[in-house]
Amino acid sequence: MNREQAFTIVNEKIAGPRYEHTKRVAETAEKLAVKYGEDVEKTVLAAIFHDYAKLLPVDGLRKIISDHQMDPRLVDYHPELWHGPAGAILVRDEIGIDDLDIFNAIRYHTTGRAGMSLLEKIIYIADYIEPGRQFDGLDEVRMLADIDLDKALRKSLGNTIKFLIDKSTPVFPDTFEAYNDMFKK
Amino acid sequence: MNREQAFTIVNEKIAGPRYEHTKRVAETAEKLAVKYGEDVEKTVLAAIFHDYAKLLPVDGLRKIISDHQMDPRLVDYHPELWHGPAGAILVRDEIGIDDLDIFNAIRYHTTGRAGMSLLEKIIYIADYIEPGRQFDGLDEVRMLADIDLDKALRKSLGNTIKFLIDKSTPVFPDTFEAYNDMFKK
Repeated sequence: MNREQAFTIVNEKIAGPRYEHTKRVAETAEKLAVKYGEDVEKTVLAAIFHDYAKLLPVDGLRKIISDHQMDPRLVDYHPELWHGPAGAILVRDEIGIDDLDIFNAIRYHTTGRAGMSLLEKIIYIADYIEPGRQFDGLDEVRMLADIDLDKALRKSLGNTIKFLIDKSTPVFPDTFEAYNDMFKK
Repeated sequence: MNREQAFTIVNEKIAGPRYEHTKRVAETAEKLAVKYGEDVEKTVLAAIFHDYAKLLPVDGLRKIISDHQMDPRLVDYHPELWHGPAGAILVRDEIGIDDLDIFNAIRYHTTGRAGMSLLEKIIYIADYIEPGRQFDGLDEVRMLADIDLDKALRKSLGNTIKFLIDKSTPVFPDTFEAYNDMFKK
């Protein structure tokens, strides 16, 4: 599948602001793929589909996670974490994209995890820094993404954990493990 | 062993400012034990011995952790985390205090863990809020400790995690798990 076909499919699924966000993530991810030596078309495809399940009702997301034996801890955490794992399933089964690295890049793009692949890191960071985003600490992550992807991950994961703590909410364990993993060499 | 005997032993091991800290932790822990219904003498004993290994050389602490098959991940994290687990071993084997709850209160007083007992929570919080401490966010934890021990734990664990993230250091997994555990009812 080429990127034009992919954009057409996704535009029908998540028209509006979410589609505009997706285009910016794809552009950002493409630049990171060139910079860090990842397969460009694979990266763009993962970026285009990363939010495929974003606008589905939470009951549907929960059922997909449950039916496909995804991490059972997810349903005890915020529904915002469900569209990644559910989207990975749908992109594989509805769209027929049968690439495990793309599957994992979609699956873990919100939480991160320990042992992320280069593609997973690129999609996570592209989603975090795309030009439409605006929040405290973002400029530093954008600067780091330009020179050291792991340092950008460490900073963005740390920011996310601090944000959740300030909101007095629990933090999904994959995110903690992703943060600590960024210190291993 | 009564508290006077315990103080005498500890004063020889950690004379000076650390002993003064220990006395304040014991006083604070005693008040929390009365408030929350924990055995007072057991609580005071745990508090008196919580920093028993604090002034030992890190090589000795590492050896105790290794020889006694404590959590092997500890040695990959900051040595500040070692005096709890090592102290628990020494208090059991050198002093002969054979109480698993006291053992765990000493062992986890720096990191916390998921599933802390009431005694473990009291020692953790007493160590954090004793009157000699002075840092941002402490007044809120002191206030919470007066009304809801779990909320005090959640706030202090969150503060500690944010502090470590701001220092760009990894966070021991037990601390993350303790934080998330405070949201379970």
